[in-house]
Amino acid sequence: MSAGVHGGRAKCLQRLIRLEMPVPVTVALSFDAVHNVGCGRMPDMAEILGHFGPMPLLSVRPSSQDPDWGGPGAILNIGMSDLCHADLCERIGEGPATALYLRFVQSYAVHVARLDPDAFDLPDTADATELKAALRAALEAYEAETDEPFPQDVSVQLSEVLRSMARAWTGTTARLLREAKGAPADAGLGLVVQAMALGVGPGDCGSGVIQYVNALTGQPQVTGRYLSQSQGRDALTAGERAMYLKRDPRGPSLEESCPEAWADLIRFGEMSRRRLREEMQIEFTLHEGKLSILDAVCVQRSSRATVRIAVALAEDGIIPREEALMRVAPSALSELLHRQVDPGAPRDRLVKGIAASPGAATGRIVLTAEAAQSSAARGEACILVRRETTPEDIRGMHAAEGVVTMRGGITSHAAVIGRGLGLPCVVGANDLVIDRKRKQIKIPGGRTLAEGDVITVDGSSGDVLAGEPAMLEAALDVGFQTLLGWADEFRDIGVRANADTPADARSARTFAAEGIGLCRTEHMFFEGDRIGLMREMIFADSAKERRTVLDRLMPMQRGDFTALFEIMAGKPVCIRLFDPPLHEFLPHDKAGMRDLAEGLALPLSDVTARVEALAEYNPMLGLRGVRLGITVPEIYEMQARAIFQAAVAVSRRGDPVVPEIMIPLVSAMREVELVKVRVDAVAAAVRGETGVDFEYRLGVMVETPRAALRAEDIAQHASFLSFGTNDLTQMTYGLSRDDAGRFMSAYVQQGVYPEDPFHTLDVEGVGELLKMGAQRGRAGRPDVTLSICGEHGGSRAAIEFCREQGFDYVSCSPFRVPAARLSAAQLAIGDASKA
Amino acid sequence: MSAGVHGGRAKCLQRLIRLEMPVPVTVALSFDAVHNVGCGRMPDMAEILGHFGPMPLLSVRPSSQDPDWGGPGAILNIGMSDLCHADLCERIGEGPATALYLRFVQSYAVHVARLDPDAFDLPDTADATELKAALRAALEAYEAETDEPFPQDVSVQLSEVLRSMARAWTGTTARLLREAKGAPADAGLGLVVQAMALGVGPGDCGSGVIQYVNALTGQPQVTGRYLSQSQGRDALTAGERAMYLKRDPRGPSLEESCPEAWADLIRFGEMSRRRLREEMQIEFTLHEGKLSILDAVCVQRSSRATVRIAVALAEDGIIPREEALMRVAPSALSELLHRQVDPGAPRDRLVKGIAASPGAATGRIVLTAEAAQSSAARGEACILVRRETTPEDIRGMHAAEGVVTMRGGITSHAAVIGRGLGLPCVVGANDLVIDRKRKQIKIPGGRTLAEGDVITVDGSSGDVLAGEPAMLEAALDVGFQTLLGWADEFRDIGVRANADTPADARSARTFAAEGIGLCRTEHMFFEGDRIGLMREMIFADSAKERRTVLDRLMPMQRGDFTALFEIMAGKPVCIRLFDPPLHEFLPHDKAGMRDLAEGLALPLSDVTARVEALAEYNPMLGLRGVRLGITVPEIYEMQARAIFQAAVAVSRRGDPVVPEIMIPLVSAMREVELVKVRVDAVAAAVRGETGVDFEYRLGVMVETPRAALRAEDIAQHASFLSFGTNDLTQMTYGLSRDDAGRFMSAYVQQGVYPEDPFHTLDVEGVGELLKMGAQRGRAGRPDVTLSICGEHGGSRAAIEFCREQGFDYVSCSPFRVPAARLSAAQLAIGDASKA
Repeated sequence: MSAGVHGGRAKCLQRLIRLEMPVPVTVALSFDAVHNVGCGRMPDMAEILGHFGPMPLLSVRPSSQDPDWGGPGAILNIGMSDLCHADLCERIGEGPATALYLRFVQSYAVHVARLDPDAFDLPDTADATELKAALRAALEAYEAETDEPFPQDVSVQLSEVLRSMARAWTGTTARLLREAKGAPADAGLGLVVQAMALGVGPGDCGSGVIQYVNALTGQPQVTGRYLSQSQGRDALTAGERAMYLKRDPRGPSLEESCPEAWADLIRFGEMSRRRLREEMQIEFTLHEGKLSILDAVCVQRSSRATVRIAVALAEDGIIPREEALMRVAPSALSELLHRQVDPGAPRDRLVKGIAASPGAATGRIVLTAEAAQSSAARGEACILVRRETTPEDIRGMHAAEGVVTMRGGITSHAAVIGRGLGLPCVVGANDLVIDRKRKQIKIPGGRTLAEGDVITVDGSSGDVLAGEPAMLEAALDVGFQTLLGWADEFRDIGVRANADTPADARSARTFAAEGIGLCRTEHMFFEGDRIGLMREMIFADSAKERRTVLDRLMPMQRGDFTALFEIMAGKPVCIRLFDPPLHEFLPHDKAGMRDLAEGLALPLSDVTARVEALAEYNPMLGLRGVRLGITVPEIYEMQARAIFQAAVAVSRRGDPVVPEIMIPLVSAMREVELVKVRVDAVAAAVRGETGVDFEYRLGVMVETPRAALRAEDIAQHASFLSFGTNDLTQMTYGLSRDDAGRFMSAYVQQGVYPEDPFHTLDVEGVGELLKMGAQRGRAGRPDVTLSICGEHGGSRAAIEFCREQGFDYVSCSPFRVPAARLSAAQLAIGDASKA
Repeated sequence: MSAGVHGGRAKCLQRLIRLEMPVPVTVALSFDAVHNVGCGRMPDMAEILGHFGPMPLLSVRPSSQDPDWGGPGAILNIGMSDLCHADLCERIGEGPATALYLRFVQSYAVHVARLDPDAFDLPDTADATELKAALRAALEAYEAETDEPFPQDVSVQLSEVLRSMARAWTGTTARLLREAKGAPADAGLGLVVQAMALGVGPGDCGSGVIQYVNALTGQPQVTGRYLSQSQGRDALTAGERAMYLKRDPRGPSLEESCPEAWADLIRFGEMSRRRLREEMQIEFTLHEGKLSILDAVCVQRSSRATVRIAVALAEDGIIPREEALMRVAPSALSELLHRQVDPGAPRDRLVKGIAASPGAATGRIVLTAEAAQSSAARGEACILVRRETTPEDIRGMHAAEGVVTMRGGITSHAAVIGRGLGLPCVVGANDLVIDRKRKQIKIPGGRTLAEGDVITVDGSSGDVLAGEPAMLEAALDVGFQTLLGWADEFRDIGVRANADTPADARSARTFAAEGIGLCRTEHMFFEGDRIGLMREMIFADSAKERRTVLDRLMPMQRGDFTALFEIMAGKPVCIRLFDPPLHEFLPHDKAGMRDLAEGLALPLSDVTARVEALAEYNPMLGLRGVRLGITVPEIYEMQARAIFQAAVAVSRRGDPVVPEIMIPLVSAMREVELVKVRVDAVAAAVRGETGVDFEYRLGVMVETPRAALRAEDIAQHASFLSFGTNDLTQMTYGLSRDDAGRFMSAYVQQGVYPEDPFHTLDVEGVGELLKMGAQRGRAGRPDVTLSICGEHGGSRAAIEFCREQGFDYVSCSPFRVPAARLSAAQLAIGDASKA
C-alpha cells in the first residue's frame, strides 16, 4: 500500500497495523477504485462488508496523497438502522443508542443525501424521550425530502457514502482549493472503511487525541484530550468536559483513570516516532476499557517546532542529517529570525501592501525621517510611513522599528534597506493616502490615522495592522544553529552577505556568512555631517577643489572600512565603489535648497540651477556608477585610498586583509581598464607611503546586459564578476523596479509574467545573460570568481541556478543568509540522491 | 607607377604623359625613397639630375596617396644660383630673373633652411635695382643666419629640399592632421621632381589653372584664371591682374590672346575627363607661347556637384553606374535635402551644440511652443529655443523653422522629432542659459540675446549663429533623382521611412521609401483638442468611462490612419500602438494643473494627486508600451478599431490596405498573446460591422534585451519583428539617451566607447542581441519579417549589419531615406565586386 495509490491515511494505518497497534478492521479503497465510484462503477460491496462482522458499524475517512490537499469529512456510524438501534439500546442504553442513530441520520441526510441542514437540527439534550422524538422527526423529514424511507441496509448506506465522497472530491471548489496547495489536476482520493470502535457504552468508553511534542516549540510534551462517552475528535472541542491525558493538578486525567491505556499510548507514541520517523498525533478510542488506535497524522507544527523536531529526530539517530535538512523549508528559517504576529491573534487590518521585509514591529506612526529620529531619541518605538523612501531617509529608517511605503515594489529602496537592516517593511501600500499637512493617513473605508497612533507592520504578510497584536519572539535557538551547522557540511556553494554597515556586518557574522559579497559604499555618505561634505564636493568647481573636500571625507571612509575589516576578521569583503547619481545627495525641496545655499554661502539661484542641471530623466540609466568614476575620478581615488589604508591598518593587527574592490554599472571593457589604472596607482602610492605590501582584487559588477555580453573582454581586467541581478533584471526587461509596483501584481495575476522577476530570478531571460556572462567570463579568465549579489541571491531558484552554472558564491541580505545556507544544502543533497 | 607607391600626383602625371600631354620632364620618388631620405639615406642625385638638361630649374611637389592628406608645399625654381641668375638675366631680363632668384632664396631660407621669415621679406616692386638690393640683402641674411653662403649647387639645393620635405611629413602636426582625415599611421609621401616651365620671359609667358565644371553645381563650365608672367597657382590669387580663360565681356581672355593654347586646353580637358574618368583641374604654363601641363588634380566640389558629376560621367558612358554610385558619400545626399549655410559666408557663432538634425534655418528666437505658434500665425519665421522639448512642444516644433535645446543628445526628443520633420536642430547646447523671466538667452562670453532676435541654427555643424548668413538652397535635382534611381537597381535590402504624420508620409513618398516602417501614434494625441480628451481619459474612474472618452478619440485616429493609408497608396504602413507613459500627457506646472482642474471640474488637489501618483522614477522603464496595453486595454482596442476601419475605408476606394500593427516594449511572449487576442477580436468585430474582409499583420517591436533573447517564443505570435535600436541600446548599456549627453563626448574622447552608440550601432553588444533575436525569431517562425526601425536605421553601419543578417528592411527618418538607399546600393556593389 503506498500513499500514491491508496493515500496517506491508508498507508499510515497499514504501518500502524504492522507495528501491531490495535487498529480496528480496515479496508482501503484505492484512488482508482474511488475514481470508478465517481463514474458510477461501484466496487463489490459484499466483498467489502465481508471483512466486517454481522450488523457492522463503520466509518469512512478520506485518504488523499497529501493531507494538506483536504478531502470530504469523515462519516461515522454507517450501518445504523432501526434494527441496529434496537440492538444498541440493549447494549449501551436507549439514550446513547438513539443519540448515535440521530447523529448518523443527520450527517447522512446533510453530507450524503445533501438535504437542507435546517431540517436536521440536533437537539441539545440527553433525555431519551426527547431524543427519540427528534429521531422520529429526522427520519420523517428524510422521507419527506426524498420520498423514500431512510435506508436500512448497510450496503446501501455505504455505497451512497462512497459515491458522495467520490463526487465531492471532483467538485470545482475542492479542486481549486487543493490546486492552490500544489495538488496536481489529477490528484486522486482514497477512502478508508473502518470498523467503528464505539466509545459510547458501559464501562470505560470514550475517545481522544494525543501528541508527544509541543506544536509551537517542538519540545517533548504530551498534549491532547480525552472525553468519555464520545467518538472521533470530539474531545478536542469539549472544553472543560474533556479530561487531561497526563496526570494534571487542574483536573482528572486518563493516566489516573485508565493507567493501562495511558501506558499503551505512551508506548505507541515512542514506537510511532521511531518507526514512522515522525512526531505523530494519534486518534484513539476506549471501548469497554479496550484501546483502539483509529488514525495517526503528522503533528501540525510551527516553524520553530519544525526545526526542533527535525534536529531531535536526527540527533536521536532516527533520521539522517540530510533528511532533517530536507524537512525544513528555508522560508521557515526566515520566520524565526524575526518577531512575528502571533498567528492566533486577532488582526485589525488597515491596508495591505507587498510583504517586502519579514517580521513584525509595532510603533507610533511617524511621517518623516526626522520625526523617526526624534521618536527614537525619546525611546519611543515608531513606524516610518512614507510615500517612498530615498537615501535621505536612511537615518530615519535606522531609527524606526518598521517601514510602510505607498509606492515601490519588492526591490524598491525601502524594501532593500529594510531587508538589509532586518527591519519589517511593507511597500506598495497603494491604498494609503498620506496627508502631510494634517499629518494624517487615510485608509480605505474612511478610517483616518494620525501621527502618533500605534500600528503594527507585518512584513511577512504585507499587512499593516491597527494597534499592537500579540507577538511571537525570534528564535535563534540551539536547534536552529545545529541545523545550519549541518547545512554547511552539505552545501557546495558559498554564501556571503550584503552588508553596508558595521551593524550589517555583525548580522552577517551572526548568521555565519562567509564574507561580505556586496558592501554598498554610498550609504556611508549620508551619515552625520558627511552629506554636507558630499554637497560641497558636488558644488566644487574643479578637480582640485573636489579633491580637497574628498580629503576630508577620506578618513571617515577609512574608518568605515576599518570597522568592516575588523568585524569580518579576515573573511573576504567586497566593496562596491560609489554608485548613485550625485543628485541623490542634493535636496529636492525649496527649504532644503535654501539651507544648502546658506551652508555653502551661494546664491539660492546657483543652488537651484545646479540641482536642476544634475536632474535626470531616468536616473537609473544616467550618470552614475563607473560613469561617475571616469568623469569625476577623484571619488574612486579617495575610496581606493581609504580601502587600502584601512586594509594596511587592520592587517598590522591581525590576519592580512585582501580587499575586493568592485566597479559598478560597467558596460565596456575600457571602463574597467581606466579605473584599474587609477586604482593600481593609488595602491602603489599607499604601499610607498606605508611601507606595507598588500594584495587586493579588482572586479566588476555585471549589471548591464552589455557587460554580460562582453564578459570575455571585461574579465581580462577583472579577477571576479559579480552579477547584480536587480539592475540586470531591470535592464533586461526594460522595467524599473521602483515603477513596476503599480502593475506587477496585475501582470502576475494575468500570468503575463509567471512571477515577479524582481522576486524570483527570471531564468529564461536574465538567467540566459548570466549563463552567457559566466561562460564568456571564464573564456576570458579561466579562474575568474563568479557570484550573484542582487536581491535574488538568497532565493532557492537563484542558488539552484548558480550551482548549476558553477558559480563560487551567492550574496544576499544578512537576514536571508540562513535560508540561503539551507537551500544550498538541500540542493546539494537533492543532487546527491539523484546521482 | 601606382598611387600606393609613388602617390596620387605622380600617378596622375604619368597618365597625362601617356595621354601625350606636354608634361615637362618629371622624376617621381617613391614612398620608400622619400622615407629613406627622411632617415638620411639620399638617392643618387646625379642619377636624378641626369634626367634634366644642364643648369636645370626644377620644382618639387608632394605626392601623397590621397591629396586630402596634405603634405609640404611645392618648392619652385630649384637650381637658381648666381650663375643661373646671370644666364636668365640675358634670357628673360634682369628684373624678372632677379625676382625669381629672390623668391627662391626666400622660399628656400624659410621652408628648407627654416630661418626666420621676417628676415626674408619680399619687396613689393618690379624695379630691377630695388630687386637686386633685396636679393643681395637676402643672400647676406642667409649667410648671417647659417654661417654658410647660399648654396650654389643644384644638387645640394635639391638634396636639402627633398630632406626638408621628407622630414616635414614625419612631423607630429602633419601626422595628426592627416590622421584626422583618415590616413593610416604609416602613410607614405612621394615627391615629384619636375623641370620648370618658367612662365616668365619674352613672348606669351604665364601660368594658369583651368577646370571644366562649376565646383558648386557640377554643371559644365570652364572656370579658372591665367596670369601672364607668373608661375604656379599665382593666377588664382591675382585678382584683377589675372585674365579670363574663355572669351568674356568683362575683360581680356586666354581664348582671345592665345587661341591655340586655349584650344589645346579644351582638348586636354575633354581627354582627361574621358581617360582619367574624372573632372580634373589642370595647372598649366605658357612659356614663349608653348603650353606645358604641370599638374592635374580632381576638381574640389560641393556635394551637389559631386552628384551631378558622377551622374554625368555615367550618362556619358565614361564610368559604369555602379562607380557613379560609389563615388557619392551618402552623407553628401543628406546635405542636399536641406538648406545649408553657405560655406563661404562669415559665421558669428554664438554657441556650439550637437548637430542633431541637418540643414540650416533662420528665424526670430521664441522661448515657448505657444510663442512659436503665434509667430508662425503672423508668418514670421522663428527658432524655438528650449531647455529640452517634450511631447507638449510638438505643435511649437511644427511651427518653428528650427530648434535649439540646452539638454539632450543625438536621440533626444527634439533630435528625433527634428529629423522626422526635416527641421534643423541643435541639441545639448549646454553653454546656453535661458532666463525665462527676462525672456533672454545668455551666451558664453557675456552676450545676451532677447526673444525676437534673429539667429540661425546650423543643424549640420551644431552651430548656432547670430543673424542670417547667406544660404544655399536644397537641391533635389534631376541628378539626385537619377542617382537614387540607380541605387534602387542595385540595393538588395528594403528601405522604409519612420513617419508619424501625413507630412512625414509625403516626405517618405518624395524620397521613394518603400513604406512606413514605424508610425508612432502617440504624437496623434497631442494635436488640437485631443490632449484634452487624453487627459479626460486618464482621469476616468472606470474602464467604461475610459471607453466613452476613447470613443470620441477614435474617429480622429481613424482620420489619421486614413490619411496615411491614402498617401502611401498601398505601400505597407506599420503602426506602433500607443507607447508613452500616460503622465507625458499631463501638465507638470501649477498653472497647467489649475487649468486642467478647471477643465475637468475637479478640485486642484485631485489633479495634483493624480499627477503625482502617475509620476515615475524612470519613465523609460515604467508603465508604458504593451504594459499599458495590458493594464488599460481600452486604448489598444480603440486604436485597432481605428486602424481597421481606416483600412476598410481606403481599400474600398483603391488597392487593399494590409495594415501592420506593432506592439511596443514587449518583454514576454504572453504580452503578445494577450494583445493578439484582443486585436483579433476587434478585427472580427469590424469585419462583422462593415461586411468587408481584410488582412492585417501583427508584429512586435523588439526593444528590450529580453524580447531579443526570447524572440523564438515571441515570433510564435508575431509575423514580424522590428528592432527598436534606440531603446535596445539604452537598455543594453543601461544608459538613457536623454541623460547620456552630459558625459558622452568625454566618453568618446577618452575612447571609453569607440563611438556614441546612439549614433553608430554598437555591433559588438547591441548587435549581438539583434543577431540572436533574428536567429531565434527565424527559429520560431521561418518566414518572420525582420527589420530595424530605430534612429540607427539610416546609418551605413546599421544597413551593413542588417544586410549581413538577412534583414528584410531598415526604416529611418524620411530625410535619411536617400542616404540609406545609396548606402544600401554601395554595400551591395561592394559585395558584388568582392565576389
